[in-house]
Amino acid sequence: MKKIIVQKFGGTSVADTDKIKNAARTAVKEKQNGNDVVVVVSAMGHTTDYLVKMAKDLSDEPSSREMDMLLSTGEGVSIALLAMAIQAQGYDAVSFNAMQIGIITENVHSKARITDIKTDKLKKNLAEGKIIVIAGFQGVTPDGEITTLGRGGSDTSAVALAAALNAHRCDIYTDVDGVYTTDPRVVPNASMLREISYDEMLELAHAGANVLHPRSVETAKHFSVPLRVRSSFKLDNLGTLILGVEKMEIYQPVAGVAADLSQTRIVVTDVPDKPGTAALIFSKLAEENISVDMIIQSYAKKASGTNDIAFTVDDADAEKTAKVLDEIQFGNVKIDKDIAKVSIVGAGMIDRPGIASAMFTALAQNNINIRMISTSEIKISCLVNKEDAQKALKVLHKVFGLESGKIAEVKGDLPPVG
Amino acid sequence: MKKIIVQKFGGTSVADTDKIKNAARTAVKEKQNGNDVVVVVSAMGHTTDYLVKMAKDLSDEPSSREMDMLLSTGEGVSIALLAMAIQAQGYDAVSFNAMQIGIITENVHSKARITDIKTDKLKKNLAEGKIIVIAGFQGVTPDGEITTLGRGGSDTSAVALAAALNAHRCDIYTDVDGVYTTDPRVVPNASMLREISYDEMLELAHAGANVLHPRSVETAKHFSVPLRVRSSFKLDNLGTLILGVEKMEIYQPVAGVAADLSQTRIVVTDVPDKPGTAALIFSKLAEENISVDMIIQSYAKKASGTNDIAFTVDDADAEKTAKVLDEIQFGNVKIDKDIAKVSIVGAGMIDRPGIASAMFTALAQNNINIRMISTSEIKISCLVNKEDAQKALKVLHKVFGLESGKIAEVKGDLPPVG
Repeated sequence: MKKIIVQKFGGTSVADTDKIKNAARTAVKEKQNGNDVVVVVSAMGHTTDYLVKMAKDLSDEPSSREMDMLLSTGEGVSIALLAMAIQAQGYDAVSFNAMQIGIITENVHSKARITDIKTDKLKKNLAEGKIIVIAGFQGVTPDGEITTLGRGGSDTSAVALAAALNAHRCDIYTDVDGVYTTDPRVVPNASMLREISYDEMLELAHAGANVLHPRSVETAKHFSVPLRVRSSFKLDNLGTLILGVEKMEIYQPVAGVAADLSQTRIVVTDVPDKPGTAALIFSKLAEENISVDMIIQSYAKKASGTNDIAFTVDDADAEKTAKVLDEIQFGNVKIDKDIAKVSIVGAGMIDRPGIASAMFTALAQNNINIRMISTSEIKISCLVNKEDAQKALKVLHKVFGLESGKIAEVKGDLPPVG
Repeated sequence: MKKIIVQKFGGTSVADTDKIKNAARTAVKEKQNGNDVVVVVSAMGHTTDYLVKMAKDLSDEPSSREMDMLLSTGEGVSIALLAMAIQAQGYDAVSFNAMQIGIITENVHSKARITDIKTDKLKKNLAEGKIIVIAGFQGVTPDGEITTLGRGGSDTSAVALAAALNAHRCDIYTDVDGVYTTDPRVVPNASMLREISYDEMLELAHAGANVLHPRSVETAKHFSVPLRVRSSFKLDNLGTLILGVEKMEIYQPVAGVAADLSQTRIVVTDVPDKPGTAALIFSKLAEENISVDMIIQSYAKKASGTNDIAFTVDDADAEKTAKVLDEIQFGNVKIDKDIAKVSIVGAGMIDRPGIASAMFTALAQNNINIRMISTSEIKISCLVNKEDAQKALKVLHKVFGLESGKIAEVKGDLPPVG
């Protein structure tokens, strides 16, 4: 049986008819390689902005059901055009929207999750030799209501289709060359990773690398779908392969460095040191739908019998958080927007002591003050002053030897890695 | 039970968000009248042209299946926006595309005919008090293929929905005030008809009045759906009501005058005068999908034992017709593009002799040469030179007293009408 390759083209990769022709060539090339090809497409370039603008002209608060009806038309245009472009190159192609295929979602508008994908029509058309072009970002409920998947939706459509079809690989074509060791706009000698694990990619994604939405990576991890992030416009560049760590050839302690500048630090001092205090604060925040990122509670009980709790939230939630804390009336609240979260990510750090101290030492030697620290198995994050974020990225990128894209060689107390 | 009113807004009536708000007000007004309201919408203004242009950029001959996928997105945008606009005016509204409703068509792309409309979802939503907004022009096959209905498609969707729902009336909102006695751009004192029969409207539509596509009128006649053509922008104007002649209050011999400038006259001289000759010519033309309009065969057999046959075809089919006749090799073919068909239409002429002679006399008195004549029960058409078409319209409009919009007072041998 032929291998199935799922390709996904984002909005910038189908922004005009020339780019659609390019996407068509890419699909045809994969077909010429002897594979079955399923292409998932987003709406063209600025279509969504244009549609949203008209909706706002008509209503201050358009219903999410009708927004989904409206926005889903964007992919309707790009799938038909791409199918035509493939046909014009002499290959058989057919486009389907989510309703025609049966990309079933829960009955929630604007951020639905996929629950099932029907594969009968897909398998039939692949068997007939057709390249199938499918609308990303959208779904349909069992009742025939049209839904959209929200942020990262088209990537998630592609990965879910790859999983449903047992595809050999899912290629995410985009306007960057692949996944970098850090943001190349900040650190010019950032290097592209040939491979990265799902977990590393997830930590990098959450830490502010905007290549792939974490949701699509989570789905790929769950169904073990190998993902490749690659450029729509440099087809000889293979980009970055994202897959389970057990399959990886390269194994380095730190795979990437990322900075997130959109966090606000909240410090609540003089909180009563008794059981349930932290639980009360964070359950109140959860009720208001505020996501909390780093959380630190000092263990040194003060003479006053009180404690300090610090955490970070998204800048957008800062005011709401202050209001919630005001209502609880615990301690004194300090809000600090002038911070950035700098993270190093790597599956390799699990088995290697000394990575953390290498990070802290490097920051200290460069006079970058660490305000808060939080760690996971494969990530270490430090809060620093916002003005230090770029310098921190450059320093860490250098210290962990990421310029070369090779295995890190870290100075200090880190044992050599072979 | 409440009356159901189906409203249809064409592309110019939803061309921008201001016009969409106007359409929403119109729907809400009908709801406030205590009726259930179903609104059928076309794509916004120039959307279709824009989509076709992109398709042509990608392919010289885009597949009709993918063209249908592409074009159907146009109504997808307008239905969602109109539903939002109605909601913003405080009324409950919901939009559906043809696939969601089940507007079933035959499996033909770009000019499918409706075979069935499912009404369960419509009735349920009307019962919940919602204004329903439906995509015109599109359908779906039993296999889930998206089709479009071709020219006059949205009008036909609206009439078919009105028939399926047993609606009280179908209102076609457009950019003209109603149906006129003739083209007001040519005859400035043309007057609007308050009522006209389906058959008269059909003859007027075929004769070149572009208000309604004949197909929608035929559907309305078949299912006895009262149709009203009215302006989207002058809501106090009731427009023209089109209905069965037995319901009509006004009854005049000539309801309207129309000119069709897009016809070519084909004359085949010296055709063998034996049985089957005409059948052969017209069956060959039918095989090539060429519609023939007026047909005249001279009954005066010539000394040579041959005959002449003349007929008209659409300008666009003239070359193809010449080619077909060339293959048959019958007689000599003359092609004349310099003609126009001028018609008078009226259910009242059935019982009134003298209408035809009044027409011919008026044309003759104004030095307009009649090249061919064809009649039906409620229409008389004369081919004239193209340069005489406007003059002919004015003359006939005056002779049959249509300026006043009152019952015709015709000079000549027509008996007075009370």
